[in-house]
Amino acid sequence: MKKARVIVKLKEGILDPQGETVTKALNRLGFVEVKKVRFGKLIEIELEIEEGIVPRIEAMCQKLLANPVTETYTIEIEED
Amino acid sequence: MKKARVIVKLKEGILDPQGETVTKALNRLGFVEVKKVRFGKLIEIELEIEEGIVPRIEAMCQKLLANPVTETYTIEIEED
Repeated sequence: MKKARVIVKLKEGILDPQGETVTKALNRLGFVEVKKVRFGKLIEIELEIEEGIVPRIEAMCQKLLANPVTETYTIEIEED
Repeated sequence: MKKARVIVKLKEGILDPQGETVTKALNRLGFVEVKKVRFGKLIEIELEIEEGIVPRIEAMCQKLLANPVTETYTIEIEED
């Protein structure tokens, strides 16, 4: 079993309302040093595959896991 | 300006309905090698602080960013 980790982030310039809300909430809680918060997704995938794992995960990102218009993704493969 | 990155994951044993749905969706799309998917959050924080950044981010996690009952978090500080 292999493990891969996909990190999906909003592209620069795309508004992140959740991040803005959390920035304000942290400021209100006294964390006034916080200037900006951006949210992204971490997707951990366990899969039974021997070879070609990166192009396979890339296909998953393009078809389902990420929105290419608003998001970017990076793929990390965990060593056994 | 410093940058920190918080990764929030569901604890082992906590159900992840989003991950289960995406596992099934990937299988249906032909990615039959996918056995398990778990979702987590990536939170990127920009802050104006010189010292004591890790305990400060830990306090944010405990107060707002993570649910200690169901989630674990890890903190990474980006070097300037």
